[in-house]
Amino acid sequence: MFPLNTWYVAARSDEIPQDRPLGRRICNQALAIFRSSDGSVAAVEDFCPHRGAPLSLGRVEGNTLVCGYHGLAMGCDGRTVSMPCQRVRGFPAGRSFPLHEAHGFVWIWPGDPALVDVAKIPRFDWLGNPQYAYGGGLYRIGCDYRLMIDNLMDLTHETYVHSTSIGQKEIDEVPCQTHADGDHVVTQRHMAGIEAPPFWKMALRMNGLPDDQPVDRWQICHFTPPSHVMIEVGVALEGKGGYSAPDEFKAASWVVDFITPETDTSIHYFWGMARRFRPDDEALTAQIREGQGRIFAEDQEMLERQQANLLAYPDRKLLLLNIDGGGVQSRKVIERWLQAEAAA
Amino acid sequence: MFPLNTWYVAARSDEIPQDRPLGRRICNQALAIFRSSDGSVAAVEDFCPHRGAPLSLGRVEGNTLVCGYHGLAMGCDGRTVSMPCQRVRGFPAGRSFPLHEAHGFVWIWPGDPALVDVAKIPRFDWLGNPQYAYGGGLYRIGCDYRLMIDNLMDLTHETYVHSTSIGQKEIDEVPCQTHADGDHVVTQRHMAGIEAPPFWKMALRMNGLPDDQPVDRWQICHFTPPSHVMIEVGVALEGKGGYSAPDEFKAASWVVDFITPETDTSIHYFWGMARRFRPDDEALTAQIREGQGRIFAEDQEMLERQQANLLAYPDRKLLLLNIDGGGVQSRKVIERWLQAEAAA
Amino acid sequence: MFPLNTWYVAARSDEIPQDRPLGRRICNQALAIFRSSDGSVAAVEDFCPHRGAPLSLGRVEGNTLVCGYHGLAMGCDGRTVSMPCQRVRGFPAGRSFPLHEAHGFVWIWPGDPALVDVAKIPRFDWLGNPQYAYGGGLYRIGCDYRLMIDNLMDLTHETYVHSTSIGQKEIDEVPCQTHADGDHVVTQRHMAGIEAPPFWKMALRMNGLPDDQPVDRWQICHFTPPSHVMIEVGVALEGKGGYSAPDEFKAASWVVDFITPETDTSIHYFWGMARRFRPDDEALTAQIREGQGRIFAEDQEMLERQQANLLAYPDRKLLLLNIDGGGVQSRKVIERWLQAEAAA
Repeated sequence: MFPLNTWYVAARSDEIPQDRPLGRRICNQALAIFRSSDGSVAAVEDFCPHRGAPLSLGRVEGNTLVCGYHGLAMGCDGRTVSMPCQRVRGFPAGRSFPLHEAHGFVWIWPGDPALVDVAKIPRFDWLGNPQYAYGGGLYRIGCDYRLMIDNLMDLTHETYVHSTSIGQKEIDEVPCQTHADGDHVVTQRHMAGIEAPPFWKMALRMNGLPDDQPVDRWQICHFTPPSHVMIEVGVALEGKGGYSAPDEFKAASWVVDFITPETDTSIHYFWGMARRFRPDDEALTAQIREGQGRIFAEDQEMLERQQANLLAYPDRKLLLLNIDGGGVQSRKVIERWLQAEAAA
Repeated sequence: MFPLNTWYVAARSDEIPQDRPLGRRICNQALAIFRSSDGSVAAVEDFCPHRGAPLSLGRVEGNTLVCGYHGLAMGCDGRTVSMPCQRVRGFPAGRSFPLHEAHGFVWIWPGDPALVDVAKIPRFDWLGNPQYAYGGGLYRIGCDYRLMIDNLMDLTHETYVHSTSIGQKEIDEVPCQTHADGDHVVTQRHMAGIEAPPFWKMALRMNGLPDDQPVDRWQICHFTPPSHVMIEVGVALEGKGGYSAPDEFKAASWVVDFITPETDTSIHYFWGMARRFRPDDEALTAQIREGQGRIFAEDQEMLERQQANLLAYPDRKLLLLNIDGGGVQSRKVIERWLQAEAAA
Repeated sequence: MFPLNTWYVAARSDEIPQDRPLGRRICNQALAIFRSSDGSVAAVEDFCPHRGAPLSLGRVEGNTLVCGYHGLAMGCDGRTVSMPCQRVRGFPAGRSFPLHEAHGFVWIWPGDPALVDVAKIPRFDWLGNPQYAYGGGLYRIGCDYRLMIDNLMDLTHETYVHSTSIGQKEIDEVPCQTHADGDHVVTQRHMAGIEAPPFWKMALRMNGLPDDQPVDRWQICHFTPPSHVMIEVGVALEGKGGYSAPDEFKAASWVVDFITPETDTSIHYFWGMARRFRPDDEALTAQIREGQGRIFAEDQEMLERQQANLLAYPDRKLLLLNIDGGGVQSRKVIERWLQAEAAA
């Protein structure tokens, strides 16, 4: 169960080829996503009205997607534009899906097109901001999107799942604080005077800071419905103000998590990092992406086997501890959205 | 749904080993097909009456198939012939299936043995004709056998699926003509004064003809129930009579398609080519088979994903355009056969 | 259907890592099996009461199993011992399963813990006996555990499945004798004056005996419920007393088969051999294990495809011949046990 009348990330802009469509299932709907010659992107259901062939095996010609089986040319609106030697006026139209492209991401509105509102696409400080460099990737994970939200809104798991990179015992020992402000849920943890874990030692060095001194570390997780989790993370040399320390004493970034349901029990997980330091250093961007990709891959087996366990024991009630507060509050927001959609 | 009281190709003769059986599922029935020491072929259900082991893991001894688990010797008729230290007279008999071998193919009648009629095996001009050389192969494709018939009875797909080998834009632009004569359906297209596509340029050169001159090209698809599609294909130098041109001006062949249902949504696809030129040139046979195999493999993903789409959208009505006429008429014949079987 | 209030082999002792648990499904129950720092082994369900994560991805700390997701520490009894920053007294307890470790094997009682009786673990002459050397391995096979029992209680299959190693025609030709003594079923075959097959020629040489003389060979299969099959196998130089021959004229071993249901249609098959000659020769143990592993792997495809056949033809009645007597009698014992459990 996921809200439909809202925006999800469908793809990074650079995933969509020039001449061919991208086949992708989103919210249980198989789609062919393509970029027209006018530069705009469109998404139609991955089903040719002629004989049911998958349009995602076709190719782009002008502003149409040409079916790779018998040449039906589908327009961006799901209506057939032409087909060799055929009159196409009476062809049944398929569904098309509102898309909006901005700052390197393609957003999709899987629900009722009449309700589309581009203003509802969430804005994030780093998106389209030249002070930041973004690098990221995409993982397909076989779990309900809410398990991924739980994961990201409770970072105590770093101590266990990511013990060799970003985890450390102090995360466990410092309580987190969670509060909800309308649909915006924040859970945060501030650790003072600790040793930086390996990932942050590297980041300190890249900021020209010593990596052998105590630091203050913070994690501030922001949930925005339906399923976006942005996490402010960083370390500052101890006693320089922590999260509020001047830039010259800290290394800080946004962890970027766009979670898009593929099916009821699988997601497209667009992970990434937006950093404010040395934004023009592409080698650094690549290095961080490689490291983050390795770390974030460690969650996959855990999430997929957790999902399998929950399907095997559907009646078990899970615990809701204080550390689960971020996930619990986020699920409450989602539940409100689902109820509002069901009522409408 | 496929007719059962009819002949399908079960295997090429050269697929059946000397000493072992061939395991193959045909029309939802798992079979062990084997060649007795007397040279005849037999097919029994792939189930040993002793303990249910698959007979296809056994070996041939004389005119029996010996189970590879405990040595029961099964006869060609599905009755147990012997078993070490056992009296087998009371053993339950399994089913056997009428086979007929001719001209390099083994045919099977999966339906009622009482209705078997060898005269109903279709005859094709090239079969067993020394003027022709045949080369071919076998693909397993995950689709309803009728989707493969549709594919072969509408060659406009060559323009899209096989664009780099046998496809060309003119196929799209020249209307096809379809007619049915009883159970025999023919759909054909004749293209005049066009450039030969890569495959046919090669064939022209192999016939000692120039490959840089305009040609007349034809495709004449013949459907014979339950699921055989023979296609006359060729090119002639322009203005020499096209399909009727004398041999010295053309390159021509039969595309051979025997389609045998494996299950409701999968087939054994026996593809091949029978050519009338240089029939003794085995290197040429091998070269053409290799090229055809590569081209015909291009259909697999399209057909399997079309099948998946049709299962996902069972209520969608597909379009029936003029180019679909060959498939539509063929399905009508199949429907008549199915109704006749249901009535009987 | 398998008895639950009984002992199965859960693992070889050397399969359980020092610091991590072993994840294994037994009798349809997913388990995390681990060795505490006090040396004892425990098995808990593979489900963390916090968020349903698989405990088998965790690590052992002291006498607890620490969840690899958020650090809940589970005790050997299925109760939560601790969790960072949490009071755990009210946490729901999960199931734990009685284990008993002895002589290199870990036994599990998957049923009612109130009925546990360590005295019911079967005793075998070779287990823990320094006169014997044991070597073995573990295969997962996709079949009902009773098909594996059938396999081992009718060794005529050696002639067919293992024709190149331990099979020989004489097995087929000499009738077996089966008798049941309470829950203990024995089926045996004694072959006099035959040529030893390849495996036994090797064993003769290793015992310093000639491999080119006629031998007497025996196979005495013992079934002990729920699913243990111990087989006395050996050869003696002809006329020296066969099974009863003095040690200097024979090569003899126990074939060890512990069969543990994984699911209704899959098993963990702990195969091995316990030999009484040259028990300290570790290279010989390794060599025999390697050879036995290769031979016993030959059964896998047969058993899995037999299982598939039985699922496809659920109504077929199988034959019950004299050679099947061992399996038939063993199944009768199992049936009695199942009825007793159902009645209780």
